[in-house]
Amino acid sequence: MGKSGKKDTDSGKESKAKGSKKKLKARVKELEARLDAPKGPLVSPLAPDFPDLPAIDGVRFATAKAGVKYKDRTDVMLVEIEAGASVVGMFTRSATRSGAVLDCQSKLKSRDASGGWAILVNSGNANAFTGAAGTESVAAVCKGVSQALGLPASRVLTASTGVIGQPLPHDRIVDVLPDMAGRLDPNGMAGAAEAIMTTDTFPKGAARTVEIDGTAVRIAGIAKGSGMIAPDMATMLAYVFTDAKVSERTLQSMVRDITSRTFNAVTVDSDTSTSDSLIVAATGKADHAEIASARTAAGHAFKTALHEVMHDLALQLVMDGEGATKLLEVRVTGAANGPDARRVASAIANSPLVKTAVAGEDPNWGRVVMAVGKSGAKAERDRLTIRFGEITVAEEGQVARTYTEEAGVSYMKRDRITLSVDLGLGDAEDTMWTCDLTYRYIEINADYRS
Amino acid sequence: MGKSGKKDTDSGKESKAKGSKKKLKARVKELEARLDAPKGPLVSPLAPDFPDLPAIDGVRFATAKAGVKYKDRTDVMLVEIEAGASVVGMFTRSATRSGAVLDCQSKLKSRDASGGWAILVNSGNANAFTGAAGTESVAAVCKGVSQALGLPASRVLTASTGVIGQPLPHDRIVDVLPDMAGRLDPNGMAGAAEAIMTTDTFPKGAARTVEIDGTAVRIAGIAKGSGMIAPDMATMLAYVFTDAKVSERTLQSMVRDITSRTFNAVTVDSDTSTSDSLIVAATGKADHAEIASARTAAGHAFKTALHEVMHDLALQLVMDGEGATKLLEVRVTGAANGPDARRVASAIANSPLVKTAVAGEDPNWGRVVMAVGKSGAKAERDRLTIRFGEITVAEEGQVARTYTEEAGVSYMKRDRITLSVDLGLGDAEDTMWTCDLTYRYIEINADYRS
Repeated sequence: MGKSGKKDTDSGKESKAKGSKKKLKARVKELEARLDAPKGPLVSPLAPDFPDLPAIDGVRFATAKAGVKYKDRTDVMLVEIEAGASVVGMFTRSATRSGAVLDCQSKLKSRDASGGWAILVNSGNANAFTGAAGTESVAAVCKGVSQALGLPASRVLTASTGVIGQPLPHDRIVDVLPDMAGRLDPNGMAGAAEAIMTTDTFPKGAARTVEIDGTAVRIAGIAKGSGMIAPDMATMLAYVFTDAKVSERTLQSMVRDITSRTFNAVTVDSDTSTSDSLIVAATGKADHAEIASARTAAGHAFKTALHEVMHDLALQLVMDGEGATKLLEVRVTGAANGPDARRVASAIANSPLVKTAVAGEDPNWGRVVMAVGKSGAKAERDRLTIRFGEITVAEEGQVARTYTEEAGVSYMKRDRITLSVDLGLGDAEDTMWTCDLTYRYIEINADYRS
Repeated sequence: MGKSGKKDTDSGKESKAKGSKKKLKARVKELEARLDAPKGPLVSPLAPDFPDLPAIDGVRFATAKAGVKYKDRTDVMLVEIEAGASVVGMFTRSATRSGAVLDCQSKLKSRDASGGWAILVNSGNANAFTGAAGTESVAAVCKGVSQALGLPASRVLTASTGVIGQPLPHDRIVDVLPDMAGRLDPNGMAGAAEAIMTTDTFPKGAARTVEIDGTAVRIAGIAKGSGMIAPDMATMLAYVFTDAKVSERTLQSMVRDITSRTFNAVTVDSDTSTSDSLIVAATGKADHAEIASARTAAGHAFKTALHEVMHDLALQLVMDGEGATKLLEVRVTGAANGPDARRVASAIANSPLVKTAVAGEDPNWGRVVMAVGKSGAKAERDRLTIRFGEITVAEEGQVARTYTEEAGVSYMKRDRITLSVDLGLGDAEDTMWTCDLTYRYIEINADYRS
């Protein structure tokens, strides 16, 4: 009633009212940001800088915008590996794996031709659960690459990542292959890392150099993946290249071993994709004696460096876990045996209650006890020791006498959390990595249709 | 600059500004509501009406406000079961189970006394991972009940539910026992359902009457639980009472069997608590011949009714799953064997990607294929049939020809969703129930400390 009259004559109040309007606007903006901002193409707060990736002698890359699904971005990667390379792979063990995975497994098993290899990956469409059409698409793409590069189709390894259940418009890929073949570039690996991204918020690359017989041997790799990441080669594609000279058998054995402690030791949501693939190619161009065992000094040095590259890539997958704001390392020691150590690490790393507690910066060790208990591994409540970082939180069946909630809460504010559980039963240990479970995970995956 | 001058002379703009200020206020209110409202004590949108629970001859209840943790609400339930009853239990298989669970298991195994039984439950504190003090608390509470009711302590079964790792202030419970013993009431079951609630948004009860030998036999039960619900007797307490006359051995066998298809077939978040307990007591007060087998007509009728009560309670746990907005029934048929059927049902029901899709009303059958694939069960991509309700979505390795996205989206808007997977391999089947995974689950469990 009299308010507007009062305001008209009271400039002090008028400006105060204006101030509060300004405040209101700011508040609306802030609230909208909190509700809506996550919809945008945010980059994970855990994203590292993209590293310099060295050229690997014997490997060349090209990318293209084929418009498989995305517009105005590269969505196809072509890799040519010269003849003489050792090429090995690891794949999802899903019972519903995609046609491309089955095709790669078959080709790497039979190895019925010699010469070089090619890798062709498209993003935007996973060509999974697409029936007979899916198999035809794989064949069409392999044929296209075979013709463009002059290789047998049996030397073409493909992968498709993106939506499941929609036919792959493979003509769009085949059409760009001749042009791509003319643009192959040894320095194209960084561009390739971008072409294979789907829901990733940052491209993933890692590199190491290791000296063998006085020669600098280079290892560099790229990966993609952000959701559906779980042990058993989760949703991820990874390609690692090196100029090392290493026998195929030794390389396969090293890669299998390292995979169990890297790509198979990370989990985002316990879900497993139908398309996961890891290819490692060693071109043999470096000037050193062939590595035929991981037990020699050279073999050990090479394996360690390869492990570092694969570890780095695997952790980047977790750091780009959908909605991730914290990286959680789960260390289990004192287990009765190896499988038990993995069971406990996995139960903790996949527990929604542990992961939401980490999101909330809550040192909720009770949920860790719960996860140990449900894991199925041998455990004794009164022998457990639980630590956040260096802080002992619980031991001998109860809260540690030295523990303070302040110390726990303060530690949980970090963006890299280490959670250690000693079972006090044996010598077996294992480590897994995961991220926290946040609103944004729900937002990304629920696709609310209101 | 000139803005305020302009406004002073332009009442039209002033009122428009006022209007927009009003709008801004409304907008702030709305946004705050969207961000903050879920913090309140909402009731699950899936909550059913609380049923009428009949008195069970031979069972009496009392509740009290002991202030274990909560203020101004009942937090202790005392149940007295007259001598002559068959009493059986099922408990969490967690390796870190609480002192109360270990105590109950020991007492039900040894059965070293005769006469009646008592059940004492407190909410607010789980007395789990509390070391030697936890064991002392269990003993103190049992002694208190023993004295208040004149029963051997070995006939007192207890349970504690709430926060893990904090000493139970058992004196507060012991202090209210004499008064409770004086108020035992055959009609107190509904009140008991409220006293055992923790994060539950509604009390849970179910009842059935079944005619045996011309006599109306009553079965009624209560339960609590909303998070940390997963197969293996997840976080839940359930107490079922009947006046049926049934041998302890037969009752135990029936309860074990039914539990695997009810309480062990529901999951909210795949996490499992350290305190889960189910007690079933049959007082034998009903006037019919003793049931000594599930295979007789009377045994079958009783078991069916008991199954209905336990099924009803188990589904209410899911309907009160933290943040639940939809109830999802996962039916698996055509599995090669029973364990495979359970593996597939469990992989789907625990998949965060499937559960977020349900939250988003997204008929994302690709994620169902993924979950089948990761389950570890025998599966063939091209033999799978996936249905939402009666709508066939995918078959023969691809989208069903008759499927339309409109039909799928329309079906997903329901608050009860049935997802059926036929593996096309054998005759084994299984059914599990879960809820969707929403923002509210994160909110409840992350306890963001900002």
